[in-house]
Amino acid sequence: MGALDNGHYDLGVENEINLGGCCELDFKQDPETVAIEDAVKVLLEGLGEDINREGIKKTPLRVAKALREGTRGYKQKVKDVIQGALFPEIGVENGVGQAGGTGGLVIVRDLDLFSYCESCLLPFQVKCHVGYIPSGQRVVGLSKLSRVADIFAKRLQDPQRLSDEICSALQQSIKPTGAAVVLHCSHIHFPNSPPGVLDSDHSKWVKVIVGSGSGSFEKHDSAMWVDFVGLLRYKDINLETIRSRNQDSWCPSKSIKVTSSKSHMVTSVGSILRSLGQNPCNEELMGTPNRFVKWLMNFKDSKLEIELDEFSRIPSRTTIGCLNLNYKQHIKSELNLSLWSLCEHHLLPFYGLVHIGYISDEEVNPKGKSLLQSIVHFYGFKLQVQERLTRQIAETVAPLLGGDVMVVVEANHTCMISRGIEKFGSNTATIAVLGRFANDPAARSKFLQSIPSYSL
Amino acid sequence: MGALDNGHYDLGVENEINLGGCCELDFKQDPETVAIEDAVKVLLEGLGEDINREGIKKTPLRVAKALREGTRGYKQKVKDVIQGALFPEIGVENGVGQAGGTGGLVIVRDLDLFSYCESCLLPFQVKCHVGYIPSGQRVVGLSKLSRVADIFAKRLQDPQRLSDEICSALQQSIKPTGAAVVLHCSHIHFPNSPPGVLDSDHSKWVKVIVGSGSGSFEKHDSAMWVDFVGLLRYKDINLETIRSRNQDSWCPSKSIKVTSSKSHMVTSVGSILRSLGQNPCNEELMGTPNRFVKWLMNFKDSKLEIELDEFSRIPSRTTIGCLNLNYKQHIKSELNLSLWSLCEHHLLPFYGLVHIGYISDEEVNPKGKSLLQSIVHFYGFKLQVQERLTRQIAETVAPLLGGDVMVVVEANHTCMISRGIEKFGSNTATIAVLGRFANDPAARSKFLQSIPSYSL
Repeated sequence: MGALDNGHYDLGVENEINLGGCCELDFKQDPETVAIEDAVKVLLEGLGEDINREGIKKTPLRVAKALREGTRGYKQKVKDVIQGALFPEIGVENGVGQAGGTGGLVIVRDLDLFSYCESCLLPFQVKCHVGYIPSGQRVVGLSKLSRVADIFAKRLQDPQRLSDEICSALQQSIKPTGAAVVLHCSHIHFPNSPPGVLDSDHSKWVKVIVGSGSGSFEKHDSAMWVDFVGLLRYKDINLETIRSRNQDSWCPSKSIKVTSSKSHMVTSVGSILRSLGQNPCNEELMGTPNRFVKWLMNFKDSKLEIELDEFSRIPSRTTIGCLNLNYKQHIKSELNLSLWSLCEHHLLPFYGLVHIGYISDEEVNPKGKSLLQSIVHFYGFKLQVQERLTRQIAETVAPLLGGDVMVVVEANHTCMISRGIEKFGSNTATIAVLGRFANDPAARSKFLQSIPSYSL
Repeated sequence: MGALDNGHYDLGVENEINLGGCCELDFKQDPETVAIEDAVKVLLEGLGEDINREGIKKTPLRVAKALREGTRGYKQKVKDVIQGALFPEIGVENGVGQAGGTGGLVIVRDLDLFSYCESCLLPFQVKCHVGYIPSGQRVVGLSKLSRVADIFAKRLQDPQRLSDEICSALQQSIKPTGAAVVLHCSHIHFPNSPPGVLDSDHSKWVKVIVGSGSGSFEKHDSAMWVDFVGLLRYKDINLETIRSRNQDSWCPSKSIKVTSSKSHMVTSVGSILRSLGQNPCNEELMGTPNRFVKWLMNFKDSKLEIELDEFSRIPSRTTIGCLNLNYKQHIKSELNLSLWSLCEHHLLPFYGLVHIGYISDEEVNPKGKSLLQSIVHFYGFKLQVQERLTRQIAETVAPLLGGDVMVVVEANHTCMISRGIEKFGSNTATIAVLGRFANDPAARSKFLQSIPSYSL
């Protein structure tokens, strides 16, 4: 942690192809891996889970792998990336001008990265834009800009420091006329309220834009910044905001008062931080174990009772015209119910939308949506897999909605971006069908067509 | 190559973290690496290049790394990925229905992959959608669907076979009720015409959509397909097309008659294929070395003369209003000139748009655009780096356009997606400024604002 210094460049030895620097077997036997596994077992027990349950018995190892891989940047050296990738390129001939190896701005835009928030240990997404102005008739291989950014993203981070560290590393290693970085960062705004009283989707993300400049970008009124931001062509980038630098903590968990009594769980998270080579007593990490435990405890298998009896039948506000169906009732639906949950394989969030279709001819009940939303949250707020969640929602709503039910869950899984596979744009859809939907492809198709295009 | 069989599952040993199975040093000394390096040196010499030139002296090693990493799927085993990632999940209770561990469709959408075309050795992009219907009360970890797809993408491929192999591997390893795969594949339609007589952008990509089904998806009239395609919600997926299966070769180079006399270059490409563990005499690879050499020879440093004298001054058709400039002329521009080139560091294509701005008050010359386009192609059709290309275009057009010139190049680099970093959405922008643009940030900003949003 802490500010960038030369020490950061010289820790450890890694290379591009061999990410772990060790084979699978060594990794599993590493004392750091074992220590993280032990700590995760304490956390799972604190959540009331049976650590020998089939679905989660390997979760400690998976969490250890994800965290070590997600913080591998501590062991990587910028100079290993840059050396051998500086190429001689002459600049413009004669007269006034900049291009080629001297003075012509080079930027790589829209690099998808992720990082781990130092305040709460949840991964956050980064859209990274880096640029530099070559000097000394040397340009750097384009992919190296991405690799350098990734070295600093794969650490416990704060957006402004991440930006500063990337910028400073480029300045020191390439020695350009100037270097600039702009980051669009998105942090999940995980609800801390009990299920049923959650905010709407509007607060799903905390977003910040940060930037850093060095060399000819250091002066905040530099015309270079105008070129850089002009080339990015994002309408939401305000130069004033970037110049003022982001000093506030953006992590939503920072504003939550933490008075945890789960001291053994908090101690375990401290042990995880130490196993990642960090000192939990450092200023940036003070309170992180408490915040992580506070967040995790949202997913303790809840004893909350849903008052299902209040609503014996709850037809919806949306009705889809009945076409080619072999019965007279209409397909009705409640679309875009908000979903939050925690993947039991990696202890990482997944989030998305739930769509419920059913066959009914009853009248509209405006209270229906809030009950269905409560049911979704009830099953979301525990350790889950999306397949099970989909089934549980279907089985719970079926008796309320007349028995003919189709549930579609569309979700983004943080574990699909913040581990080795890093599939940023991917998402998962699951289906449960009960009653007549099971045997009526036309009804299923009709309901699927009514679901709006997914975008999260 | 060839159809999927059990042998594919049992080749080699790899694991998730340690991609290379060896350290950097071992990799460099591997006989396969050395053989590919030697072959690439022959190709570079065939292009008329000095293999000791600073920019390309490590190109043989970089090409070897990219190709071996891009075909690592031959050494990976599906069962290593799937084993330990099948989790017990019960299905719906009572009555008619499917969900959870039995019968509820599970799909992962929009996985970005790339593969190498077996016909021409160029990488192609894949948007991959995979689904399966759990049976036996077992579900598979979601990321494994991505990892299995990647094992087959990281080989020399054809879209239909890639789809079939992924589907078959899922069926055999998960043993579900059914498995289905749909792939959106995009192959670069690299122009084979000489510079100056190129097609417009419309032919930039060859796109195909292919699909495969097994188990309950095997019957082409299966209602399961309607659910799967309904959940994908892509308007361009036609079930009839998928059912008919794609038998045609999509690779644009297949239609080109190859009568190469560069037999030493062709032999070298054959040696590369053998070093990747493939037999160049196999039916799928017959002609591949010839086609690769034919394509590569587009980038032999051309002696083509551009008749610059014909157009001494070529003002443009587009004029940007002059605001806050300290001179009376207008900024004019020629936007969206098409660019094709070859990255000299990896011998991989990059492509994009070139925008040229200049200060002038002369009249419009409709021939201007085609001359500027010819200049862009002239500098594109050789081994390049984007920074140098940008400078060369600026220096060449400056005397024609009055000396005050700004050139912006926006490009996608295949080397940013088809190697280790796999940054699918990223792109690179470079600037060259000459004359008054160099000292006038307002003029630069004005020109940048006139460039339409980049989308390739």
